[in-house]
Amino acid sequence: MDYEIFDLGNAKLLRGATLRNAKLAYKTYGKLNASKSNVIVYPTWYSGQHYDNEWLIGKGMALDPDKYFIIVPNMLGNGLSSSPSNTPAPYDRARFPNVTLYDNVTLQHRLVTERFGIEKIKLVVGWSMGAQQTNQWGCLYPDMVERIAPFCGSAKTAPHNFVFLEGVKAALTNDVAWNNGWYESPPTKGLRGVGRVYAGWGLSQPFYMQELWRDMGYSSLEDFLVAFWEGFFLPKDANNLLAMLWSWQNGDISDNPVFKGDFKKALGAIKAKAVVMPGEMDLYFPVADNEWEVKHMSNAVCKPIPGVWGHFAGGGANPVDTKFIDDNLKALLAS
Amino acid sequence: MDYEIFDLGNAKLLRGATLRNAKLAYKTYGKLNASKSNVIVYPTWYSGQHYDNEWLIGKGMALDPDKYFIIVPNMLGNGLSSSPSNTPAPYDRARFPNVTLYDNVTLQHRLVTERFGIEKIKLVVGWSMGAQQTNQWGCLYPDMVERIAPFCGSAKTAPHNFVFLEGVKAALTNDVAWNNGWYESPPTKGLRGVGRVYAGWGLSQPFYMQELWRDMGYSSLEDFLVAFWEGFFLPKDANNLLAMLWSWQNGDISDNPVFKGDFKKALGAIKAKAVVMPGEMDLYFPVADNEWEVKHMSNAVCKPIPGVWGHFAGGGANPVDTKFIDDNLKALLAS
Repeated sequence: MDYEIFDLGNAKLLRGATLRNAKLAYKTYGKLNASKSNVIVYPTWYSGQHYDNEWLIGKGMALDPDKYFIIVPNMLGNGLSSSPSNTPAPYDRARFPNVTLYDNVTLQHRLVTERFGIEKIKLVVGWSMGAQQTNQWGCLYPDMVERIAPFCGSAKTAPHNFVFLEGVKAALTNDVAWNNGWYESPPTKGLRGVGRVYAGWGLSQPFYMQELWRDMGYSSLEDFLVAFWEGFFLPKDANNLLAMLWSWQNGDISDNPVFKGDFKKALGAIKAKAVVMPGEMDLYFPVADNEWEVKHMSNAVCKPIPGVWGHFAGGGANPVDTKFIDDNLKALLAS
Repeated sequence: MDYEIFDLGNAKLLRGATLRNAKLAYKTYGKLNASKSNVIVYPTWYSGQHYDNEWLIGKGMALDPDKYFIIVPNMLGNGLSSSPSNTPAPYDRARFPNVTLYDNVTLQHRLVTERFGIEKIKLVVGWSMGAQQTNQWGCLYPDMVERIAPFCGSAKTAPHNFVFLEGVKAALTNDVAWNNGWYESPPTKGLRGVGRVYAGWGLSQPFYMQELWRDMGYSSLEDFLVAFWEGFFLPKDANNLLAMLWSWQNGDISDNPVFKGDFKKALGAIKAKAVVMPGEMDLYFPVADNEWEVKHMSNAVCKPIPGVWGHFAGGGANPVDTKFIDDNLKALLAS
């Protein structure tokens, strides 16, 4: 096991359930300095686990473990933190409770404060649903979070994003093997279907026109669909995917007792210096939505990641995009 | 029955099958004049039938039946022309043969010439797959077709478009009731899934953000997903949808014995005066692709339909977009 577990005890969730003996899986990179002033928090994304974040961490990069103490908390539902796949009955599998963005971030806050006694965070950064958690950190803990860098994400799931996820859900749950979540063996057709639906959303029209999947090592379009997209989702647990999908569809940094649904108030509460980086051609987190958000934040700029990699501009597969993100993180950390 | 049938006899299809006693269903509007010089051909779109085209036909509109003789041929596979659902064994249901764009248009050409003795067509116009047929008409019959107006379509299905359709297919075929096409009762979960996947593609991100489904008479996002999208696909035959989906995924005006896959040559063969109208925010037929096509056509302009209705800018549901299309058709017909 290359990660650690923080026992959350009985975690009361926003929607009413109590997740007993809840677990938060996390990994740290680098060392916490004496003044506890070198902390970066870097939450995971939809179906990703901590090691999937490591492409943005490294010597000489902005997220340099020689300089910073980087905490990567695994999102609830991702299979390492408490999830449908690892929670004992009666909250197991299809009965796993609904987890909100607020739940994820307040529980991460407990890890950061109770386990490490940290009072200031230099940067919260994340991709996609990790970006949503980043924004949630910013507005819930404005005196603690000094900088945020959400990339290819939003502060509130847009209705179109909700709809795209309905399509993903339909492809999965139409597999009779899914059995309303009470499967004994995985609904593999459904999981492959998730990959097929996702394939069109994750990358842009010109990405496919230019056949840039060749740069990723695939030999044909169908090879990309099978080996990358189906292969990506096939090993994942269907109930975990659906649990995180619920969290995503209901992602809203203001949907909690602090902001009571007032989205502009939540955005306005973010005091951190923010660099918001949408993918220029991201099909589910459009640049326009980030531009609108930034206008309602006190100290934020929107810097689109140029190019045709769509949502996956933030996925670490394209060196040019990675450099863009890394350069902006360096500048932000230096400021 | 509000339409007519043209008996095609034994139609040899490009991919090898012979569709025996093939039928082309069509409807005409207006009267063919003595010189046979007032002809408009207006093919149908994915899953649409002739009456679904009628929103663009009417007194005072460009497609005015008082002036023009408008022929609306139903695409093969759409349930009225020869289709999986109405073809007798052995080419019925899952055994219905692959039909190409070339097949559709050459068979329509037989209708136009053999049935009506028409030698010149004033305009070919169509939406989506109807636009693809329009482009196919233009390059196969350059001396016959005087004008074309393909809207929200392309001359060749882009790889991303192909991928989006893979997602649609996965949602449908993941329903065990589909039974590889040998269902006795409809795979309703699959058909509903098609609607859910399609919902994100058909309309743009800001369409959903602005809740423009309200203008279409829906009371909530979920109401729109159920009553419009699921309701749209639920009455349709699954094998018909898959047959037309194959035609779409393989749509390429140059994939035939005339142009032998030389796409630029096929575009260059279009002599008709062309007004190509992509939806400004169409997610599957991007403006950029039409701009590229127009550069390779001899007498064409690209005029994007402004606004946020995405692909459905060409669907007739938004009066502003309909006026834009109609105005451009009027100008084209007058030229």
